[in-house]
Amino acid sequence: MSLILHEFAASGNCYKIRLLLAHLGRPFDRREYNILNGETRTPEFLATINSSGRIPVLQDGARFLPESNAALWYLAEGTQFLPHDAFDRADTLRWLFWEQYNHEPNIATLRYWATYGGGWDVQPEAKRVQIPAKQAAGEEALGIMDTHLHGRAWMAGAAFGIADIALYAYTHVAADGGFDLGRYGHVRAWLERVASMPGHVPIDG
Amino acid sequence: MSLILHEFAASGNCYKIRLLLAHLGRPFDRREYNILNGETRTPEFLATINSSGRIPVLQDGARFLPESNAALWYLAEGTQFLPHDAFDRADTLRWLFWEQYNHEPNIATLRYWATYGGGWDVQPEAKRVQIPAKQAAGEEALGIMDTHLHGRAWMAGAAFGIADIALYAYTHVAADGGFDLGRYGHVRAWLERVASMPGHVPIDG
Repeated sequence: MSLILHEFAASGNCYKIRLLLAHLGRPFDRREYNILNGETRTPEFLATINSSGRIPVLQDGARFLPESNAALWYLAEGTQFLPHDAFDRADTLRWLFWEQYNHEPNIATLRYWATYGGGWDVQPEAKRVQIPAKQAAGEEALGIMDTHLHGRAWMAGAAFGIADIALYAYTHVAADGGFDLGRYGHVRAWLERVASMPGHVPIDG
Repeated sequence: MSLILHEFAASGNCYKIRLLLAHLGRPFDRREYNILNGETRTPEFLATINSSGRIPVLQDGARFLPESNAALWYLAEGTQFLPHDAFDRADTLRWLFWEQYNHEPNIATLRYWATYGGGWDVQPEAKRVQIPAKQAAGEEALGIMDTHLHGRAWMAGAAFGIADIALYAYTHVAADGGFDLGRYGHVRAWLERVASMPGHVPIDG
């Protein structure tokens, strides 16, 4: 079936899917939405594409799949980007859930507020008061990755896979959210490994 | 292999796993941790069980699997609680990720602050200012579920499965977080369907 990625290209969550599709060599069409002016909150979008009003959504024929990491899993099943061992598969999912709960809401949100959101200073009070906690939680997440990557090449299983792709997306642009990767040597070496894989494409590619 | 659930029993995330294990009829041991006094933040816990310092963690032999929904997937693979169709499997994952990003951080967090956390009023300012946004996001999540369950019996695929189990855990105790399910008739009917399944166990069981 033909694949369509409904996206906001600068989003790391959308980039994840493009990066995996590039590694898989699968063709796809792109539909861009401006999330800054509500294009994913229209009645048509909510009724047809994603009731949560979020991108990315991967469309495969007539069916729509929201949630970036669900799309990674869907595309990776049966390929080299998902381990064969049942526990390693579950461990891959563990890092995908961890990314969405502990990494993305801190590192990606601070990046979003700093860039497309117009800057931290213009955020409403209820968001600004969360900045110190998100900075601390983001550093904790990077520290957990750094410890995990000490002595291992990839986040889950024995090979490069979707746990790496999911976590690369926002880690490699963490500086946009004010994070200094200088102290995370294992993370930096892993970022270089990911970026050197054949088929790699940049976030603005 | 023998299964051990490292948990805080009142947590909906831990209950999910017990509920699936009950449906599967699989025996397991339970290890209780008091998350209120840092028992999951000790150096031993962080080094061995979960570097994120969170429960639940499912132990299978010598391996440890954090993240409640990763554990559901691990236990459900190859059973009736996960669809066979590849897209339906991905759609199951879509709802598992949606639960952890859009439902749990709002409905479960307000419940936690209201109950084990000692009440909303004693939370630090940075948390209290988030309450209105979490109330609104929780209502939005319940509304999305209600619309989705209009005319369908289960959250993903054609049968009762882990998307239902994952979302039942905190939805059925949403009142603890101040949410009134009265206006969500399709959700209430679905809660009754889940609770009437053979093998069901309550959260305090």
